[in-house]
Amino acid sequence: MKKLTKEEKKFLSESIRVVPNFPKEGIIFRDITTLLNNKKVLSFLLDHLSERYKSMELDFIAGTESRGFIFAAMLCAKLNLPFVPIRKPNKLPSSVFTCEYELEYGTDKIQIHQDAFRDIKNAKVLLMDDLIATGGTAIASLELIKQAGGKCIESCFLINLKDLGGMKKLEKYCAAYSVLDF
Amino acid sequence: MKKLTKEEKKFLSESIRVVPNFPKEGIIFRDITTLLNNKKVLSFLLDHLSERYKSMELDFIAGTESRGFIFAAMLCAKLNLPFVPIRKPNKLPSSVFTCEYELEYGTDKIQIHQDAFRDIKNAKVLLMDDLIATGGTAIASLELIKQAGGKCIESCFLINLKDLGGMKKLEKYCAAYSVLDF
Repeated sequence: MKKLTKEEKKFLSESIRVVPNFPKEGIIFRDITTLLNNKKVLSFLLDHLSERYKSMELDFIAGTESRGFIFAAMLCAKLNLPFVPIRKPNKLPSSVFTCEYELEYGTDKIQIHQDAFRDIKNAKVLLMDDLIATGGTAIASLELIKQAGGKCIESCFLINLKDLGGMKKLEKYCAAYSVLDF
Repeated sequence: MKKLTKEEKKFLSESIRVVPNFPKEGIIFRDITTLLNNKKVLSFLLDHLSERYKSMELDFIAGTESRGFIFAAMLCAKLNLPFVPIRKPNKLPSSVFTCEYELEYGTDKIQIHQDAFRDIKNAKVLLMDDLIATGGTAIASLELIKQAGGKCIESCFLINLKDLGGMKKLEKYCAAYSVLDF
């Protein structure tokens, strides 16, 4: 599997805007909109991801609301694969599976359609999100994919905030890949 | 511009699940997740949209949160174009323009980054969303694109709920295309 060079990672990470104190004091926010609206950088990223996943014989790519939708949808179009949304509660209109996960304060929930993977048994699924922090959403997403009868082949994140340890936790359940570590 | 035949429209519309009484009593919800997770249908739709937009010399595709992200992102990947998100309030971390619009009861707001179109003057923008109903969100999105210095070449929707009249209103401001009318 092709790894990015230090220069390629620099090319990608320099396109991500750093916004201090968003959404609250003390947090350094990584703003991916400046990567998404940069034609050259976006094109490079999508070529890299296509190259990585084109031979995995995936059946579906699942993306987590909302920024995960963007990357998952783009890779679906590149690889000619169908898309499955994992959404916040009360957004999916048909029968769903629900998974609750812990936040810093309190809990949150996400959902998947029970028939998300149609009639494909043990569907091979790639899970994508823009960022992994503590890993709560990602682990809940894996659980939902499993409940819906899918098999997660890999989880993929553009950004891994490695001090928060989510990637390490996630690797107990599923292969995981992050393009950039901060 | 190639138009879809009656049979092609049937092929697309039959893949969209009809969910009665969602999100509330009396509403017939068109569930696009059953189109998105259908490889053949999704691939046909994306080919149709690529064919329509590949010669328009677009600079950006803007998508409206959240389902609009999916279609806009897919078409960006197909056409090798950069993506601009139009988001609900307090999601975009840098300086934004805000537009308020009316709902059935009350108002809502959406935002775009002020530098969404980078340094490209009169950037040619395609606006995409999954559905147009009364047109409130779409007209607000056009306003935001204009404020950020872009020029909307066309608005594109998978579904037009034509009895609600949004498309007619929108056409006063910008060319508009819907793949399917219900």
